[in-house]
This record gives sequence, structure tokens and C-alpha cells, in this order.
Amino acid sequence: MKHIGVADTTFARVDMGGFAVDELRKTGTGFKTERYTVPGVKDLPVAAKKLIEERGCDVVIALGMPGSKQIDKTCAHEASTGLIQVQLQTNAHVIEVFVHEDEAKDDKELAWLAERRAREHAVNAYDLVFRPERLEANAGKGLRQGFDDAGSIQ
Amino acid sequence: MKHIGVADTTFARVDMGGFAVDELRKTGTGFKTERYTVPGVKDLPVAAKKLIEERGCDVVIALGMPGSKQIDKTCAHEASTGLIQVQLQTNAHVIEVFVHEDEAKDDKELAWLAERRAREHAVNAYDLVFRPERLEANAGKGLRQGFDDAGSIQ
Amino acid sequence: MKHIGVADTTFARVDMGGFAVDELRKTGTGFKTERYTVPGVKDLPVAAKKLIEERGCDVVIALGMPGSKQIDKTCAHEASTGLIQVQLQTNAHVIEVFVHEDEAKDDKELAWLAERRAREHAVNAYDLVFRPERLEANAGKGLRQGFDDAGSIQ
Amino acid sequence: MKHIGVADTTFARVDMGGFAVDELRKTGTGFKTERYTVPGVKDLPVAAKKLIEERGCDVVIALGMPGSKQIDKTCAHEASTGLIQVQLQTNAHVIEVFVHEDEAKDDKELAWLAERRAREHAVNAYDLVFRPERLEANAGKGLRQGFDDAGSIQ
Amino acid sequence: MKHIGVADTTFARVDMGGFAVDELRKTGTGFKTERYTVPGVKDLPVAAKKLIEERGCDVVIALGMPGSKQIDKTCAHEASTGLIQVQLQTNAHVIEVFVHEDEAKDDKELAWLAERRAREHAVNAYDLVFRPERLEANAGKGLRQGFDDAGSIQ
Repeated sequence: MKHIGVADTTFARVDMGGFAVDELRKTGTGFKTERYTVPGVKDLPVAAKKLIEERGCDVVIALGMPGSKQIDKTCAHEASTGLIQVQLQTNAHVIEVFVHEDEAKDDKELAWLAERRAREHAVNAYDLVFRPERLEANAGKGLRQGFDDAGSIQ
Repeated sequence: MKHIGVADTTFARVDMGGFAVDELRKTGTGFKTERYTVPGVKDLPVAAKKLIEERGCDVVIALGMPGSKQIDKTCAHEASTGLIQVQLQTNAHVIEVFVHEDEAKDDKELAWLAERRAREHAVNAYDLVFRPERLEANAGKGLRQGFDDAGSIQ
Repeated sequence: MKHIGVADTTFARVDMGGFAVDELRKTGTGFKTERYTVPGVKDLPVAAKKLIEERGCDVVIALGMPGSKQIDKTCAHEASTGLIQVQLQTNAHVIEVFVHEDEAKDDKELAWLAERRAREHAVNAYDLVFRPERLEANAGKGLRQGFDDAGSIQ
Repeated sequence: MKHIGVADTTFARVDMGGFAVDELRKTGTGFKTERYTVPGVKDLPVAAKKLIEERGCDVVIALGMPGSKQIDKTCAHEASTGLIQVQLQTNAHVIEVFVHEDEAKDDKELAWLAERRAREHAVNAYDLVFRPERLEANAGKGLRQGFDDAGSIQ
Repeated sequence: MKHIGVADTTFARVDMGGFAVDELRKTGTGFKTERYTVPGVKDLPVAAKKLIEERGCDVVIALGMPGSKQIDKTCAHEASTGLIQVQLQTNAHVIEVFVHEDEAKDDKELAWLAERRAREHAVNAYDLVFRPERLEANAGKGLRQGFDDAGSIQ
């Protein structure tokens, strides 16, 4: 039985973690999910590390929704740097699912984007653990999560 | 008995650490607080680490008030990066409570903002240790500390 | 028998990992390649570390194609920082092969650039393991991968 | 007997380390100072670490004077990041005393600023080791080193 | 017998490593040099670490010539950050000798600058190992490597 961690925030304006858990359940079996909610994205790195080291997760999905101001961009950068460090300290993947508020033109698109990106990256996390050959088959295919795929130019 | 560390600075123009300690006392029992004051935000990471490793804290609230110039923004970024590293080295949460001088329109609002953010994040620190289910119940609710909540768009 | 890791992404719009593997085969013998495909460049650091520590690679080629927006530049910077950390944690070289979408004037040039840079850096990875004297002989020669060499000005 | 390290550079245009040592002697007793001079600010992190680990320092004052160009700002940022890492690796404080050339309107003010900031931070380093209660009493007081204090707004 | 490492790149347009080795030989005896050439500046951190840990170097001179575009500035920043990490992991100095292409007005000045900075920093590396008192005597003297010294303003 594998464990998939889902770390998310009270700062996000959409229940991204809930969508990730729902999509994982639709995608396959053989795992249980562990949920961990923190205030903001800068709290996600240690939450991911604790999910891996204290709650036995094999992979973690870390979801957040940084704001549109410069200070929010800086926070997101610090959080991302921490999420990479966690992976190098644990040799486990942590899939970052960040949706920046200014990626969308209004709240409706933002909610749509957050759900779709959360769902698509949940499948990526599943694939890293259960079917890595599916990722290798898509190497260089220009895949995107949320908005449409860019596609191959080869 | 849990220990909650409160690290703050002589640089800040408001006794943010004092407000955090006061709010913790109003919020619950079962813990004692450890105070550690340093000159500026770049001294907070090692103070937080020492609170955890040398004084047995289970969680730390790190409070600071970076100035409004570019150099201050850079200092805050360096401090934030260090605070994340501390968490990954100790597997303990360090809640960063930074109020940037240019977030407020005047000194009065700045003082108000610093107090309110310190108090609201003190509750977050308490929740991480004593009632994590309260955070999970608020996942994706668009919560903010200081200014008004953004709210859910789901 | 040496092991050369090839880590790449489904985000890239060209099968850069495939070109690297092909070029390695044309360059020499005495090694086998290990392929590892992840969603995006920020997933490359832990993939490189796992290739080295779990699959015995002596060197890794990490290939990606960051987009042209500011957020993509930030992602690439975070990934690069992580790739350097991996090297310092393992004492093994990880050759970063990133092609930024805005380096090329159109998709055709982008595809050409991605292939050529992947191939030329594959040879660098081979040289680091099998013939370091070839690199030393080219010290200060203004070599480039992808576009033309800048050349020596001595 | 405590040890206080003083790390400085040949790049600075003022003998900041000399002022720090002088101020420490005026401030108290019960310690000896260890001096370590390096070329530039990017050499300070390892100098600070060696002062702590190889020469037994309990705290280090790291002094430098970055130039006014963008590249100098970047160097200072890298050095600051390193100084924070040193502290997290050793659990010892390293007080950074940087004076940026463009903080002052001319050389005369720059020399004055460098001396005053070096002296005031030397006292902070002393306080961290010998009288931390003095720092706690000044929490939130808006203290500055070099230019005038900003003061409390509470 | 001490060992001095010289790490350089095939990307640089001047044989900076060659100048460093030549200057070391003119400066003193009691050491041997170890050369290590890599493709670009981002490969220098692990090269420096391997020189220290696998080839017994007491100090390393890491030389590179970043380009003038923003992406080159970012690469240099990542490399510099890595070089500082190497020092903190090994407690050995790594003297960074970077010459940015846009520091010089033309290729002729660039070649002159690269040689002079390489030579002057080679002496700094020698001094850190063999005569640190020479650096201490120059604390705060406003020394520069390459262009003219700024001088003291005290």
C-alpha cells in the first residue's frame, strides 16, 4: 500500500487539495491519501517533509495559490525553493501545484484553472509512483497542466 | 507541556512578539512560551533554530518588520529562505510573521496591521500544534492574516 | 561499465532526452543509459539525484525547455539551483541542458536549437567521465552548445 | 572566556573590523577577539564558519562594504545567504554588518556610516552572548545601526 | 606540500586557468596545482568540491566568464551560490574569479581584465593558505582585482 500526501493551504481560494484527492481516487487504487493543511505556501515545504518522514508518504502533492503582488511572487519563489530542497533531502517527489492569481482573467477562470491543474498534477503524482513509463512515453510532448497543452514541435 | 517559541527583533517598530505572546495566552493552555529577541530579521533563522533545538520548542513564531527600500526587501527574502531551511532541518513549523513597512498607508495603520497579523498568526501556530483539524477545515477558504480575508471563490 | 543518466520532461516540446541518448551512442561505448522522465524542470533535481543514488549513474544529463514568461524564468532558476545542490550532495556532475523558448525566433529554430544543444552537451557529459583531458585542452576557447562558438579572444 | 570572531575584507574602504574590535574592548570583558581578513564579502561565510568551528568563536561579526553596481548587490545577496547558512550549520549567531557604498552621499559620510554601524553591531554581538535581556527589553523599539533609530510607533 | 585547485571552463574566451597557474608559480613554492576544466560556470561548484575532497586541495580558484545577457547573469548567480555552499561543506576557501563580458568595453579590454583578475586572485588564494597576515594588513584598504584599487577613505 503506497501513501500519497496532499499538502494545501487556508490561503488558497479554492479547495485544491480536495480536487487532488478526488482525482487520485478516480485514477487508481493501491494507495491511501494523507491530508495536511497549513496557512500559506511558505509552510508547505516542512509539511511535505513531515508527510514523507513522519507519515510515510511516497510522493506529495503540494498545492497553493500565490497572490498577484510582487511580495506574493517572492513568497512563491521561496516556497518552491524549499519544496525542491525537501525532495533532495528525502529522494521523494513533491509535485508543486501553484496557481498564481494573475494567471486568470477573473475569479471564475481562476477557480476553473485551480481545479484542472490540481487534477492533472494529481495524475502526474500517481504516474511517478505507479506507472513512470507513461511519463517517459510523453517525453518532449509539450504537456501543460491547467491550460491547453503546447504540443510537440518536432 | 508544549513549548512555543516567539522570536522577534529590535528593528521592528511595534512589539509584535508581545502581541503574539498575549494572543497565545488568550487562545489556550498546555504550553509555555519562550521569547528570543535579535537585532533584525536576518538574525531570526538561527534564533528559531536555537529555540527548537536548545530550548525545546515545538513550533516558533518569527516576527519582523522589514523596511520599504529594495535592500530591505532583499533582507526579508534572505530571512524567509533561512526560516524555511530551519523548518527542513528540524521538522518543526516556523510561522513567519513579516509586516512590510510599505504595506500600510501610515504609521497608525502599520501598528494596527502588525498587531493584528501577529495575533492571527499566533493562533495559526497554536492550531498547528494543538488542533490541526481546524486548519484542514479551512483549506481553500482564502484566509488572510492582518487585512481582511479574500474568501473562497469555489 | 559506467551509467549515464538522462532526465527530461513532458513539458518540453522536443524529445531532448532522445537526442541525448542517440548522441551518446554515437560518441562511444563502455556505458549504459538510464532514462527518467518527469513533468517539468522543477522535478528534474530529485530525478537526477535518484538516477545517481538509486540507479548508480556516474553523470546525469538534465534536459528541459522553460517557457518565455517571467514565471518560467523563475522556475528555471529554481531548477538550476536544485541541480547544483544535487551535484554537491553526490559529487557527481549533472549537466544542465535548458533551452528557453525565447532563445529562438520561431518553432523551427527552437527545435533545431534543442536538438543541437542536447547533442553537444551529451558529448560534454561523456567527456567528463571518459576523457576529461579533452575539456582541459579546450579551456578558455569560448565554446558554446547550440548556437555557434564565441571563440577565444586571447 | 568567550571568543568573538571578527571577519572583514580587503575590499572595504574602511577598516570596519578594527572599529568592531575597538568597540568590543570598550563594551566589556570576559572574551578575546579573533580576526580573519578575506578578499571580499563572498569569502566571509567560510571565514565565519572557520572562526566558529576551528577557532572556537561563540559569535562572529562579519563586516563588508558592497559596491553600488547591480553586480555588487548580487554579491552581497549571495554572501548574506551564505552567512545565514553558516548560522544554521553551527547554531551560532553571525552578525552581518554590510554598508552599501550607495547608502551614503559621499566618501565622508560613507566612512562615518561604516564606523558607526560597525560599532553599534559590535555591541549587538556582545549582547547576544553576554546580556540577551538587553535585546529583549528593546524588542519592537525601531532600533537602527548607523543612521538614526526609527523608533517605536506603538 | 599544499594543493591548490584551479577550476575553469571551456565557455570562457580566455585561458583564465592558465594565467592563475602561471601566477601561482611566480608567487611562491610549497604547493602543487590541480587543474579541472568543465563546460560552464554552473559546473564549477562540483568541480571545486571534487578538487577539495577527491584530489586533496587546500584551496580552489574557480574561474569563469559569464556572458552579458540576463540569463548569463542568472547562471553566474547560481554558480556563485553553489561555490559558497562548497566552502561551507568543506571549510576550505574557493576564490571565485568571474569576469562578466559586459565589464569591458571591447574584446581587447576583456582579455586584459580576465588575465589581470585571474593573476591577482591567484595571489589572494596563495595568501589565504600561506600568508594570511598579508590579507589582515590590507583590511579596509579598498583593494580590487582587475581594475584599479578603490583605496581607503578612512
